[in-house]
Amino acid sequence: MTEANEAFVLHEDPFSGNCYKIRLTAALVGVPLERRFYDITKGETRTPEFLSKVNANGRIPVLEMGDRFLPESGAACWYLAHGSALIPTDRFEQADMLRWMFFEQYNHEPNVATLRFWLGKLGAENLSDQQTAQLSAKRAAGDAALRLMDEHLATRDWFVGNGITLADIVLYAYTHVCEPGGFQLADYPHIQRWIARVAAVPGYVPMD
Amino acid sequence: MTEANEAFVLHEDPFSGNCYKIRLTAALVGVPLERRFYDITKGETRTPEFLSKVNANGRIPVLEMGDRFLPESGAACWYLAHGSALIPTDRFEQADMLRWMFFEQYNHEPNVATLRFWLGKLGAENLSDQQTAQLSAKRAAGDAALRLMDEHLATRDWFVGNGITLADIVLYAYTHVCEPGGFQLADYPHIQRWIARVAAVPGYVPMD
Repeated sequence: MTEANEAFVLHEDPFSGNCYKIRLTAALVGVPLERRFYDITKGETRTPEFLSKVNANGRIPVLEMGDRFLPESGAACWYLAHGSALIPTDRFEQADMLRWMFFEQYNHEPNVATLRFWLGKLGAENLSDQQTAQLSAKRAAGDAALRLMDEHLATRDWFVGNGITLADIVLYAYTHVCEPGGFQLADYPHIQRWIARVAAVPGYVPMD
Repeated sequence: MTEANEAFVLHEDPFSGNCYKIRLTAALVGVPLERRFYDITKGETRTPEFLSKVNANGRIPVLEMGDRFLPESGAACWYLAHGSALIPTDRFEQADMLRWMFFEQYNHEPNVATLRFWLGKLGAENLSDQQTAQLSAKRAAGDAALRLMDEHLATRDWFVGNGITLADIVLYAYTHVCEPGGFQLADYPHIQRWIARVAAVPGYVPMD
């Protein structure tokens, strides 16, 4: 899957589902990762050194290999999964997998992950007025994303094709820990069964 | 590039930069698209027929081919550009291209495109209190995205490698029309030169 002796460092925060996506992908393709930890609530990804060397966007995860740095979780998963069954070779299925990965970053993560961070980590009492004003819109948009997933899974075991792909991995990351954000998995029975399916894949590793 | 006789229908709104990305990609690879128009401000992508047949997510663009429908602009661009020079074959460059495409959907579009829609189409006087409360945060985040692009382009002609790729196409779509959203291209000289570079590519088509 990866070039011989290629070594990877994952710059990450263990609380982050975006970082976990990369760990899960690496585990499923059998690639070891060295882990380097940052606490985003302490600004550790906004230091001058981080911005100049690791990621000018001030965000994690970043996958480091040799002298190169690859930000964006979906891109890092794509790199690691190269040549594996986690990326379908069929032209439509490959594009359809990316469709779910873009959906995750646009419709799912800004709502499901953000509410988990705001309510499950920062705490409702510590939110700014502007954050509090966005809670109901993010709740509705997050539930809409989960409902769309649940309907899709009503007739399918996996998001694309007949096995696990990167689409499942990236959607799994924040979905399976959505409840601290106030979402109820009991509302989504097909998602619940799919979560069990993902966790049963050989090589699976849990979130920390 | 595409299979013989494969016919495409683009479900789109000509005002949308996400739709334009697909038109520009198709033009650069020489694939004709039939266009079908919707006005999102009139709810035309939320009708029961649209939701059941075209996209359960109620959004455009959607690329239709045969009996299949592909939502998400980045996924449609990926499908159309298959096998062309718009997608690098080098493993790192391909992942790095996707990195910019995810960056566009996460950091750029929700700020640069949304302010264009809110201020340039709906009008500041027609925004809800909740939208008005988000203006300054979206202005700052949009300028941060443009600044990151400008710094990246200070030493490069294209986002990835030595020629135009999907990364340039998707970032170009909303960047070159950012000014109705209140952003100033004069603040970003490297972006300005890159915009001229994109518009000079053989086969280029402008936004409607």
